[in-house]
Amino acid sequence: MVPPPTIAQQLAAKQREISVAEFFERNRQILGFDNPQRSLLTTVKEAADNSLDGCEEAGILPEVTVQVSKEGEDRLRVSVEDNGPGILRREIPNVFARLLYGSRFHSNRQARGQQGIGISAAVLYANLTTARPAKIISKVEEEEAAHVLELFLDTQKNQPRIASEDVMLWDRPHGTRIELVLRARYVRGRQSPYDYLRGTAIVNPHARIVLVEPDGTRVTFERATSDLPPPAKETLPHPYGLELGELGYFLKGTKKPTLREFLGKDLQGVSARAVGEVLDRCGLKPGQSPSSVQGEAQERLLKSLHEVSLVAPSSDCLSPIGAMLIKRGLRNVLGDVRPEFYAPPVSRPPKVRGGFPFMVEVGIVYGGALPADQPIQILRFANRVPLLFQQGACAITNAISNLDWRRYGLDQKGGSGIPSGPALILVHVASTKIPFTSEAKEAIAEDPEIDREVTLALQVAARHLRTHLSRRSRRDQAGAKFEIILKILPKLAEKTSHLTGNPVPDLTPVVTRIMDVVHLDATPVTDPAGIRVPVQIVNYTPRARVLELFAEIPPEAMAVAKFDPAPDGTDPGLGRAWWTLPKLTPSGRTQLELRFPPKTDVDASDLDWYVAGVDEAHLLGADPLPGDWDVRLPRTIVEAAEAAAAESAAAGEEEVDYDAAESSASAGEEE
Amino acid sequence: MVPPPTIAQQLAAKQREISVAEFFERNRQILGFDNPQRSLLTTVKEAADNSLDGCEEAGILPEVTVQVSKEGEDRLRVSVEDNGPGILRREIPNVFARLLYGSRFHSNRQARGQQGIGISAAVLYANLTTARPAKIISKVEEEEAAHVLELFLDTQKNQPRIASEDVMLWDRPHGTRIELVLRARYVRGRQSPYDYLRGTAIVNPHARIVLVEPDGTRVTFERATSDLPPPAKETLPHPYGLELGELGYFLKGTKKPTLREFLGKDLQGVSARAVGEVLDRCGLKPGQSPSSVQGEAQERLLKSLHEVSLVAPSSDCLSPIGAMLIKRGLRNVLGDVRPEFYAPPVSRPPKVRGGFPFMVEVGIVYGGALPADQPIQILRFANRVPLLFQQGACAITNAISNLDWRRYGLDQKGGSGIPSGPALILVHVASTKIPFTSEAKEAIAEDPEIDREVTLALQVAARHLRTHLSRRSRRDQAGAKFEIILKILPKLAEKTSHLTGNPVPDLTPVVTRIMDVVHLDATPVTDPAGIRVPVQIVNYTPRARVLELFAEIPPEAMAVAKFDPAPDGTDPGLGRAWWTLPKLTPSGRTQLELRFPPKTDVDASDLDWYVAGVDEAHLLGADPLPGDWDVRLPRTIVEAAEAAAAESAAAGEEEVDYDAAESSASAGEEE
Repeated sequence: MVPPPTIAQQLAAKQREISVAEFFERNRQILGFDNPQRSLLTTVKEAADNSLDGCEEAGILPEVTVQVSKEGEDRLRVSVEDNGPGILRREIPNVFARLLYGSRFHSNRQARGQQGIGISAAVLYANLTTARPAKIISKVEEEEAAHVLELFLDTQKNQPRIASEDVMLWDRPHGTRIELVLRARYVRGRQSPYDYLRGTAIVNPHARIVLVEPDGTRVTFERATSDLPPPAKETLPHPYGLELGELGYFLKGTKKPTLREFLGKDLQGVSARAVGEVLDRCGLKPGQSPSSVQGEAQERLLKSLHEVSLVAPSSDCLSPIGAMLIKRGLRNVLGDVRPEFYAPPVSRPPKVRGGFPFMVEVGIVYGGALPADQPIQILRFANRVPLLFQQGACAITNAISNLDWRRYGLDQKGGSGIPSGPALILVHVASTKIPFTSEAKEAIAEDPEIDREVTLALQVAARHLRTHLSRRSRRDQAGAKFEIILKILPKLAEKTSHLTGNPVPDLTPVVTRIMDVVHLDATPVTDPAGIRVPVQIVNYTPRARVLELFAEIPPEAMAVAKFDPAPDGTDPGLGRAWWTLPKLTPSGRTQLELRFPPKTDVDASDLDWYVAGVDEAHLLGADPLPGDWDVRLPRTIVEAAEAAAAESAAAGEEEVDYDAAESSASAGEEE
Repeated sequence: MVPPPTIAQQLAAKQREISVAEFFERNRQILGFDNPQRSLLTTVKEAADNSLDGCEEAGILPEVTVQVSKEGEDRLRVSVEDNGPGILRREIPNVFARLLYGSRFHSNRQARGQQGIGISAAVLYANLTTARPAKIISKVEEEEAAHVLELFLDTQKNQPRIASEDVMLWDRPHGTRIELVLRARYVRGRQSPYDYLRGTAIVNPHARIVLVEPDGTRVTFERATSDLPPPAKETLPHPYGLELGELGYFLKGTKKPTLREFLGKDLQGVSARAVGEVLDRCGLKPGQSPSSVQGEAQERLLKSLHEVSLVAPSSDCLSPIGAMLIKRGLRNVLGDVRPEFYAPPVSRPPKVRGGFPFMVEVGIVYGGALPADQPIQILRFANRVPLLFQQGACAITNAISNLDWRRYGLDQKGGSGIPSGPALILVHVASTKIPFTSEAKEAIAEDPEIDREVTLALQVAARHLRTHLSRRSRRDQAGAKFEIILKILPKLAEKTSHLTGNPVPDLTPVVTRIMDVVHLDATPVTDPAGIRVPVQIVNYTPRARVLELFAEIPPEAMAVAKFDPAPDGTDPGLGRAWWTLPKLTPSGRTQLELRFPPKTDVDASDLDWYVAGVDEAHLLGADPLPGDWDVRLPRTIVEAAEAAAAESAAAGEEEVDYDAAESSASAGEEE
């Protein structure tokens, strides 16, 4: 007789393997499919990301069309079509209907897709909610016809099942189209496909993206540049941050016969000199086989690798957006908001965490139609993909919340949390491996290295914001005073003259005495001939001045600028130009002009003006030359001032002196 | 000559399968292993959860010992040992060193572990960071010796690799021990093993948990009950919320020969009558084979299942904590905080989402040493497991933030966000499938059904809090006034008498006139004989009163209570008792007493007192009888009042009337 099973036996009888597809079918919220609205977004996102990755790998300027249409109650049809390289027939089933299958997981370079899960998860979700297969059309350039497959994902086996197959003529030379019918809900606004594609357009200014909404509305995000980003290259793992276990796998799996070759050729940044130094330190032999390094010897090897100074990780594997394109992308999409200020975008140098290089980019936009009384907008991106959900769980949000924004001119209760004000902060993290909090790739996990880099980048951008805001406030104050004086004084003088019967006196000396500033005005004027920036400088100080004027212009705008008169010096790389102005007597004025061709990407907030030869307290509409400008001036300020003084003396001119006529009104005005 | 590969061919060549273990190795942050502190917590959590699950499945009162010790720089040794049923030798390698392998994924009932990932992930992490195997000791009752295995997880194959094997004598009759050396950091305080085990003790009051910290400190969480929770039973899937694709799998996979049997026996809640009704609606035949139902017929079948009224889902598969044990668990752990108020915990009835039953429990604690000027504490639990990370990403936090707590007496800026005040909110979600945001199981994904249930439960508990706070404030005000009058008035009278030479008058009428209240005092006194609650009622109104007194007592305390005098009626199930008090003339008083045996789980905040026969404005220390009490009174208030009036008249008593002597001081005191 067989005895009844014991408890341990009963429990053992239930143990079994779980198919990865079954797991994700039951936990589809982990993949971003937890409600009809989010499921639609995740589907659009996975398909569009694949299209962009494919185009860029093949060196094609991406054109992606997303169409969403109603297919019945609670059901939408989603199609995403691209002009990418197409997918070989034999790979189509696995690419679209098998989880954990892909080309980008094992490659050590930046890509949107890394997991080999996303698009197959969308197919799984569609199968599950509507029992309809995914329809794939794909054509590669060298074949005549396109392949058309209808696919299911068999969750118990995690394998594709082909429901139908055909070929067709397609008017595209190459490309891929996926069509899914799924339970989903279309919304506009926050966390919508529109929102997602708009974000994608900002950080992928080389892509042309079209969205056709269920009501037929067609939205086109035109590309802002026709230059493809330089392709991200595959790199070897870098020893910094390598774990003991990973090193063990590498040692076991390498095809290099000797330890020396393994260190020098399977890892990044280990020069021949470093190989020697590492081996010396850990006492291993250059000629021994990598697989013979075991146990405690592995630990010594890793320790030595971490101690020896190595070549910094290469950033070839990363594809940052770049400061210029961040600004252009933001401007392209934020056009209607007309912000008053774009902080110069910050691109941090690449760093390594856990052997994987990463880098951080930050842009800050301020003012215009951005709402002033609400929390700032945060645009989060990872590998050029907008992150729309789980903001509260993201390392980017955390880094923003932990900064004291009050020091940079934004409102923030208690000096932590998301600040308020008319600002938008864009943060892009690029890496060969982004540590997402889940497979849905919606938030970046907490990581001290990423936190540090994001914080540093934010601080740099935030300092620009602070400078802008304090300049603005100074200008606003001084400008208001200036305007009042120029308006009121003449009226006052006229009235007084009328009462006393005396003639109206020349007011310039009085204005000069009260203001005591050099005033610069540079307001761009756009006309069919292009953008004209007349710059007027008036010396409202009681002294003759020899001034140097410096302009900072975005280099790409400077390359097409015309100057009148020609500057005395330029630095086109940094976008700098400078002039020594003709001597200005008290109340004297001079003018120069910049001209840009039509549609140049430049506006008032791009141009910075600095003046040397008068101190900050007596300067209005420009700033003193910052300390970090290292221009070789045509002549130094001291020389210029000396020359002017000598000239003055020779001509017998006297400095105008209004001290005797000092009025009480001006007493409080000097700083 | 072979032509060079095209771009599509190059891309295809890189496509390959990704092992699930490789995937998680690279994305270990998803599993909760992203920094040394969190990695330690996740390891302790996965091991302790497995221990608790194993004990409960085997009907054993759990005893779990967690020991953490230092093993070198950045390295800790973690061991978790239990008195569970043990694991058969042949299952040990797969259970501990293979991802997506387990007994609980396919069972449709509440368990802590559901994924078959957790403990193997901890083994993987230990292997990776220290290259050390996991050591497992396990003994089942029917074998003499324990098996000792050292295991690695081979990530390329996702298979266990046995590094060593042995047997040993173990002094336990049965149990399991796991020992890991991993890169980790020990912290105290928030998000620490201590924090986690304390939370576990709150919602698992039947478990005894011991923590030995690296410095040797030994913390014991004693069990608060010796009753094991009723075992959660496996159930069949319920058609509510079933997806089309899932129905398809069931139809394809069932062993039942006919559709009728499939509907009646493979699904939950479909009675014989309902089977007939469903088949009538969708026009399918009872005798046809389930696998013959395809495509559009599946859709009709699912539609009919959703339209026909079915038996509600069973909650056998769930293991809620229960209102009483929530309170006891909180009290056991919050003893030192001494809160002034525990809202009666709320257990919502079970609901279904996506075919899976779930239910929500909520407890609110207020006052005592909880900090008053900080955000409230939130204790989140899922299937009796504390959730310590990702609070901002959790559906529980969201539900709390979206409630306007100002209406319930807590501070909350703008009526949303986490409120502030000396409160703690416990929320437990129990389900056969919790929709976690990631495999780390740290936050519950947004879900409209869960959100609704959590919100409803919070509202019920919050209403109790509001009642408590408004009562307290009323009592505080009236009580302060009462105290002042009883103190000052006699002194005032004495002084006046002294000055005028008149005798000190009887003040009771004056006190009565000013206060015009019935006053109840019930302060528990604890002595060796037990807990004594003397209840004193004084009639400080100018009228004779016939009053009914009602007590609400926790049923378990009521079961052991002694009353003097005996109540006129009781409802032990609801924990209610009531008395008709002897008639109280103006300034008259009466007393009764409750007694509980020593260590009864009852205190002042558990006892609610209600008085009928006087309106709310004239009642101090008790509340008017709530409308939802449906007690069969020994005689109604009306009858009692009539009888008292008749009695009065017969005795020739007159109502005392102080109206003529109305003082200006009292004018403002009446409401």
